[in-house]
Amino acid sequence: MRFISETSSGGVPEQLFTLGDIPGVLWTPEGAVATRPLVLMGHGGGQHKKAPDVLARARRFVTECGFAVVAVDVPAHGDRPKIEDYDRIATENQARVEAGEELAPLIAGFQALVARQTVPEWRAVLDAVQQLAHVGVGPVGYWGVSLGCGLGVPFVAAEPRVRAAVLGLGGALASAEAAARITVPVEFLVQWDDERVPRVQSLALFDALASAEKTLHANPGKHGEIPAFELESTLRFFARHLG
Amino acid sequence: MRFISETSSGGVPEQLFTLGDIPGVLWTPEGAVATRPLVLMGHGGGQHKKAPDVLARARRFVTECGFAVVAVDVPAHGDRPKIEDYDRIATENQARVEAGEELAPLIAGFQALVARQTVPEWRAVLDAVQQLAHVGVGPVGYWGVSLGCGLGVPFVAAEPRVRAAVLGLGGALASAEAAARITVPVEFLVQWDDERVPRVQSLALFDALASAEKTLHANPGKHGEIPAFELESTLRFFARHLG
Repeated sequence: MRFISETSSGGVPEQLFTLGDIPGVLWTPEGAVATRPLVLMGHGGGQHKKAPDVLARARRFVTECGFAVVAVDVPAHGDRPKIEDYDRIATENQARVEAGEELAPLIAGFQALVARQTVPEWRAVLDAVQQLAHVGVGPVGYWGVSLGCGLGVPFVAAEPRVRAAVLGLGGALASAEAAARITVPVEFLVQWDDERVPRVQSLALFDALASAEKTLHANPGKHGEIPAFELESTLRFFARHLG
Repeated sequence: MRFISETSSGGVPEQLFTLGDIPGVLWTPEGAVATRPLVLMGHGGGQHKKAPDVLARARRFVTECGFAVVAVDVPAHGDRPKIEDYDRIATENQARVEAGEELAPLIAGFQALVARQTVPEWRAVLDAVQQLAHVGVGPVGYWGVSLGCGLGVPFVAAEPRVRAAVLGLGGALASAEAAARITVPVEFLVQWDDERVPRVQSLALFDALASAEKTLHANPGKHGEIPAFELESTLRFFARHLG
């Protein structure tokens, strides 16, 4: 793990790093020295580790909960090189949708492909970040919707350090099998008028989760329109399970 | 409106009253003198105005939010006399379920019948309570699940003073038409394994609400097993919309 820069943004220390060829960012409370809960955040499709919504959420987790937050670029996103296979699949999928195929199964197939790479990457990121003195081996949470859900479900299923997860904007096609191996508390976000994930698929993914405590929050609006008050709920959810 | 007793329970002043032949209870903060938000709570089937869960919720609303809370017995519940027609319908429904009929439409039909009486009663209760100096004409909220949803949906639809409502454990059969006239913010509770209200009916009632802000919270478990953390969410919901 190699640190590239250390700055502070809005009172929140921010460290850019690389782990092998994975570019990442770590946010921690000002003056942090001891072990604390760590939240790994997965970004959305076409976004990156410092997308505005990731950054806004990270700052709240750090300043209001005292958590550490880490985010890395998904392959072919942010500061990572393009991947020809991914570009080819995206172009093919675009053509298939134009020819009348359903979008959801194509998204699901793509996310399953990417997850095979990101699950081990994210586990390695946890290994590395938890060795830092100002993070340490505390409880781990995961936050990710949309692509961050498609990649997050297999990650949470595979990683016993994760004790609670916020997931959503994702369907059963991508990851119902992995969801059935998740037993930690989950807060699951659904957009009632999601134009990318059919409602029935969202409900089926929630249904598939094996967690004894899981709570579905559905709100009107399209894929990208999660209301601001859900962030308040997320903060309390993580505070309850990681704090 | 006639006050029968004035006591204090756990630091929360409690006034029993009758309004005509409707027995009710009003909780207000200690030493309250001015106008404040008022929450009307509808109790569940077979319960009454001072059922333990109503009381627990009322105390939190009063002590944490400074609200006034009012609850009255539904006809044929609590301190109100039995109603022969209701008893007859209940007996008939029991026989029809045993003969293989579905329960949900029978519950829905019964709730629609009772609502024709409770909607005007509850509106009269608001009129009376808001004339009290320690309540006044502030914003009004409604809380009710199960029977409290079946009666609450037509009440909220009819009563423009209600600015926000928590509803749930109810289905579209009872009240989809009234739901389509509700435009205030709603938090809607669904029990994922509800043995009384089919999941598809719950989702359809949420869908029918015309509110621009409505949020569905679904949790695993049976009809009566809403998790305790939903009360925290309810408190914040009302604080946001009535506070």
